[in-house]
Amino acid sequence: MNKVILVTNDDGIHAKGILELIAVAKSFGKVLVVAPNKPQSGMGHAITIGDPLRLSRYKGFENVDAYSCSGTPVDCVKLGIFEVLKCKPDLVLSGINHGENSSTNVLYSGTMSAAIEGAMEGVPSIGFSLADFDADADFSATKKIAKDIISKVLKDGLPKHTALNVNIPKLQINEIKGIKVCTQAHAYWEDKFDSRTDQFGRPYYWLTGKFSDKDKRIDTDLYYLKMGFATVVPTHFDLTNYAVLKELNHLNNEGEF
Amino acid sequence: MNKVILVTNDDGIHAKGILELIAVAKSFGKVLVVAPNKPQSGMGHAITIGDPLRLSRYKGFENVDAYSCSGTPVDCVKLGIFEVLKCKPDLVLSGINHGENSSTNVLYSGTMSAAIEGAMEGVPSIGFSLADFDADADFSATKKIAKDIISKVLKDGLPKHTALNVNIPKLQINEIKGIKVCTQAHAYWEDKFDSRTDQFGRPYYWLTGKFSDKDKRIDTDLYYLKMGFATVVPTHFDLTNYAVLKELNHLNNEGEF
Repeated sequence: MNKVILVTNDDGIHAKGILELIAVAKSFGKVLVVAPNKPQSGMGHAITIGDPLRLSRYKGFENVDAYSCSGTPVDCVKLGIFEVLKCKPDLVLSGINHGENSSTNVLYSGTMSAAIEGAMEGVPSIGFSLADFDADADFSATKKIAKDIISKVLKDGLPKHTALNVNIPKLQINEIKGIKVCTQAHAYWEDKFDSRTDQFGRPYYWLTGKFSDKDKRIDTDLYYLKMGFATVVPTHFDLTNYAVLKELNHLNNEGEF
Repeated sequence: MNKVILVTNDDGIHAKGILELIAVAKSFGKVLVVAPNKPQSGMGHAITIGDPLRLSRYKGFENVDAYSCSGTPVDCVKLGIFEVLKCKPDLVLSGINHGENSSTNVLYSGTMSAAIEGAMEGVPSIGFSLADFDADADFSATKKIAKDIISKVLKDGLPKHTALNVNIPKLQINEIKGIKVCTQAHAYWEDKFDSRTDQFGRPYYWLTGKFSDKDKRIDTDLYYLKMGFATVVPTHFDLTNYAVLKELNHLNNEGEF
């Protein structure tokens, strides 16, 4: 196959995870990398509109066209498509993220927002995340799973405007039970702030907290990850809560102002 | 009524829109403001995790407890709830945004991401946006509509984990046809980059482009806004594309690695 594949991430162009994803992507075609020049975790779907963006040639990957970018992961996808390629690639890949992006973490995740941006541009897109924050994490199982999923997606395509959110548990490949297509768990952060005082006596705050899964359903990504599966959630960007449209009829108002 | 209402925005604490929203909110109870100390448009659901956050008392609003925050709109909601109030408010309000947040703009919008974060915390939440970018925009019609919607939401509540995305056309109140509960249009940015060269001969890029509405449905926010209605889209944060789950069955794999 000789596909054109745009690769980005949110941990930054120097992270091990993107190097591993590029190695997988190269077996499917021509790879272009546009990735942030610094860590951009937690940037969600942020774009840069009040400042100009910079792109610099990056020589760190063997036989791969690559650019580091001053912006967010979503900026990288936009620049990759509209400024560097000047056409749509066959696939957008994002990751491999150092850390899980299951459940509602998908909203904060720069990795998944880049994949969702790819889907908005009409390109089949996949975000990969490994449940291991270690900068030197072992990506060998993740690479096998990524290869399996990418080859199927390139063969069969994806439903329009859908990005896959793929999460892989921190296990060896022979310990992983399989791959499950499933739904986003309704779990949340119970946030806390670690309040400290600087050298001038002024307070500052670190966001902290613990993740709380109270979702009792058994078809969610968190459920299957705990069981030892890699999970695939088809993700879209229509946030309309269709189920409650009728319930809100009383808000309709025919101009009684 | 004596409700506790947390107010934030993405245009920054000095914007006219938040001052106007505070004026509306004050008629319903006790208002706490935690808002960004600088413009944060386009920040989406970004949170600050690699840097500490700062909160400073802000004295610019009469008889209102207010803090300016160094972080994003979502940071402001988290800090407001978990550090300042230390309990859940009755309502989170975000805006009034200087500029429309209809259709897929909801993903890039700091205003709406703050409201969605409120919904994630289990608090009824509403984001308001006026289709006028002018820093001195006329918010009089928007304030009347906001008052109408807020009073109904405080009376009847909102479905769990749902935030309302309210957009108001740039019209006088007597020209506005009414309020419509509707769906998020599937429209997109056709992005372009304005490429320039700095004083050292190095390129830089401004994100630009035009918004393209090819959605033919007649129940969308863009459709009703063009007709002269204010629009209300119930918005949630489950990005699962349930409609395609079965279609992706072939990605399931029972451990054939």
